[in-house]
Amino acid sequence: MREFILYSRLGRTDTDWTNLHDAGRLDIVYECIETSLFLSHAIRKDVTFHAILNGPPNPPVHIQVEGSTLHDVRTEQQTWTLILHKTLQGKPHPGITTTKTSYEALIKTRAETGSSIHVLEEGGKPITQTTIGSNPVFVLGDHVGLPRNAERYALRYGTKISLGKTPYLAMSCITILNYLLDVKQKEKAEPQENPK
Amino acid sequence: MREFILYSRLGRTDTDWTNLHDAGRLDIVYECIETSLFLSHAIRKDVTFHAILNGPPNPPVHIQVEGSTLHDVRTEQQTWTLILHKTLQGKPHPGITTTKTSYEALIKTRAETGSSIHVLEEGGKPITQTTIGSNPVFVLGDHVGLPRNAERYALRYGTKISLGKTPYLAMSCITILNYLLDVKQKEKAEPQENPK
Repeated sequence: MREFILYSRLGRTDTDWTNLHDAGRLDIVYECIETSLFLSHAIRKDVTFHAILNGPPNPPVHIQVEGSTLHDVRTEQQTWTLILHKTLQGKPHPGITTTKTSYEALIKTRAETGSSIHVLEEGGKPITQTTIGSNPVFVLGDHVGLPRNAERYALRYGTKISLGKTPYLAMSCITILNYLLDVKQKEKAEPQENPK
Repeated sequence: MREFILYSRLGRTDTDWTNLHDAGRLDIVYECIETSLFLSHAIRKDVTFHAILNGPPNPPVHIQVEGSTLHDVRTEQQTWTLILHKTLQGKPHPGITTTKTSYEALIKTRAETGSSIHVLEEGGKPITQTTIGSNPVFVLGDHVGLPRNAERYALRYGTKISLGKTPYLAMSCITILNYLLDVKQKEKAEPQENPK
């Protein structure tokens, strides 16, 4: 099981918007949903994505998207504009839940149930030199980054990891993490196929 | 210098459309532009992205996006819907050119000017075991994949490489390739920082 938590500083918590970009950069939430969960013609069943929206008027809102039960979706933005709008109105969609869970409560629950917490940060330990557990949770910020107190909170339970000094988009960080975990899983399953 | 060539089988070559998805999946072209060229708050100056649109009514159309001269852009889809619409009308945008160059002519020119051509294909040689030149060109297909004759043509000049058996989205393949090249560049520049 893999989980990604995106801390969205300004993502709007109402439906008084017409496009994702102007809704406090919900377009970044959409992009991260896409790269967390979608393969070519398939959904990653072993991934759960979380966004914590901290924008006006009623923060926080916790949107959880579970690959194992997600249905009736396509990759493209029109679909997700409608889904996120519907979700923020409290209407259901298969695989998606919306609650008032805070970022801190989510992190704490995951740590207490045995997940390893990893905060993505340029100055962290290189991921290639880090042991990632079998139920990792990766925490990342949107275009304005993770607030310092949110980072500090997550570090009570976890460690900082880094993808290097290149400042990747949040969506790209998730793609790279999924790729590195795919490679590790494959090496574990078929060690003879990857001689060093 | 890095280049990505996306072969879009059905990408429309007119402007008779209202959204990218329904324009023969120009949304995939947009996504690949984003992951080829955009970092967080920056553009990759050393990347050129090409899409060859082979959809109706007037294929081919070659759209070239150069990181070194690209301006007046944001990452999100509304911006690129307008830019692609404008571009397909023949109107200029800084860093973007539109010509009638065919896929074959583009590949041939790149091979003749010393670029190394790499076709992304599940059954190719693992990228981690492949030497990538300093001016690589990566060729990939959209959601319906690279047509066999297009693959065969590129293989006159290059080789097949693989990111493994996970069927990544085209946009994700580009993110992963950029990441792996970033890591290699950094190892070359600062070998002492990555002791094995």
